[in-house]
Amino acid sequence: MDERPIGVFDSGLGGLTAVRELMQVLPGENIVYFGDTGRVPYGGRSDDTIIRYAQQDVRFLESFDIKAILVACGTVSSVLHRFSGSLRLPVTGVVEPAAAAARVATKNRRVGIIGTAATVRSKCYIQALGGGIEAMAQACPLFVPLVENGRFKLGDVVIETVAREYLSPFIEFGCDTLILGCTHYPLLRDIIAELLPGVTLIDSGAAGAKSLASLLRDGGSLCGRSSGGKVEYHVSDDPSGFGRLASLFLGTCVNADARKVDIETY
Amino acid sequence: MDERPIGVFDSGLGGLTAVRELMQVLPGENIVYFGDTGRVPYGGRSDDTIIRYAQQDVRFLESFDIKAILVACGTVSSVLHRFSGSLRLPVTGVVEPAAAAARVATKNRRVGIIGTAATVRSKCYIQALGGGIEAMAQACPLFVPLVENGRFKLGDVVIETVAREYLSPFIEFGCDTLILGCTHYPLLRDIIAELLPGVTLIDSGAAGAKSLASLLRDGGSLCGRSSGGKVEYHVSDDPSGFGRLASLFLGTCVNADARKVDIETY
Repeated sequence: MDERPIGVFDSGLGGLTAVRELMQVLPGENIVYFGDTGRVPYGGRSDDTIIRYAQQDVRFLESFDIKAILVACGTVSSVLHRFSGSLRLPVTGVVEPAAAAARVATKNRRVGIIGTAATVRSKCYIQALGGGIEAMAQACPLFVPLVENGRFKLGDVVIETVAREYLSPFIEFGCDTLILGCTHYPLLRDIIAELLPGVTLIDSGAAGAKSLASLLRDGGSLCGRSSGGKVEYHVSDDPSGFGRLASLFLGTCVNADARKVDIETY
Repeated sequence: MDERPIGVFDSGLGGLTAVRELMQVLPGENIVYFGDTGRVPYGGRSDDTIIRYAQQDVRFLESFDIKAILVACGTVSSVLHRFSGSLRLPVTGVVEPAAAAARVATKNRRVGIIGTAATVRSKCYIQALGGGIEAMAQACPLFVPLVENGRFKLGDVVIETVAREYLSPFIEFGCDTLILGCTHYPLLRDIIAELLPGVTLIDSGAAGAKSLASLLRDGGSLCGRSSGGKVEYHVSDDPSGFGRLASLFLGTCVNADARKVDIETY
């Protein structure tokens, strides 16, 4: 049994969609969350900048006595192999778990992937899906700003037009499974399901959370409680207004405050 | 006569619309440009974070032997009064020059302002416009990501829908003048002009550039050349692909390279 909390980070608050899943599968675990709201978004930046920011995020989480890290950011997960060798704690990203879930889900062995520009450029999902699967990836750079501005509801001509542009190549491709490779995208589930009916949608943040839960369970590192886990939140920009945006991604009303971190000093 | 270059900075590359104007009014001056592409955009961040980033940007420019700074960023300009007292060089933002241009342009004494969330929150334009002018400001948080994704052309349903939402309150307000309070917005001039016919559009970056030119001329600090000025470019993320995006904002083909700066160390 290991009472230490689990560390979770994302470029912003999208990673809370993975925290929601973690709270469901491991409701007794304590969680320390960091969202790099002072430098969000990561998805349009270069690999070197993403890795530098992610290493600071990890060092901040390591300043707590945590037992493992969930990288609840699709963009960081796609370059994780480039710096994971230097990490001292068990770390789980979202790419391999989501790819594994897609391999199980697909019947026609055609899998689509949507993600940030950095995620698509990395080709990480195509490698993780491995042989015998035909894969097609599409960068969706406007999805994050649209979601963050509340444009994710059915009937909104802006998100529906942008989503149709990004997703229509998948209709021709004929995939039966689509990986939502960014932790903001679960909020677009209704829009995507309307445009790609019958396609199984894989939530990469949820897949990452389940994978970390298995890792801890298999290693005998769960805390032993089955309820009552607490989450503490840290962000790198002004925490006021945190509760409102966090509630959106957690899918429940959050009354907790977040603490401000000067992440550039880590 | 002062041969030293002029320093110009922005959160990203939008500030190049001000550099374009500076090159037209002072074609002999050398310019050092910094774009904080590793942390763009600033417009949705808190004042404290914007000021901290802007102070690093200024310190980087001060590491060159420059004679003055143009803040070619609407967001930073709107909080400039909060740290301008600590600056050792003459600094010009875009707010007061654009407000002065709007005061001259308006006939019916109703002026609209569009800008980032931070710019609108600061109420800087309403203060700078002063008495006798009725002003209305509207935050346009999706304009920057849409422009950066190339969505600024007439006939694009996405930008036209978003622009109609943001701008229609100005039709009812009845302003004859609109301040484009962010240096990305000149690329939306055609879209805005279509939605607000007959309204005079004030380019804040161009107004700032003209104001700095007057300041240098009045102070006897021009370089004395009437052509042949050079621009050197610095950015905080990977400079590859710089020329393509820079060409968009400069309105001419840019073959120059940009140098990478580790801005967090300033």
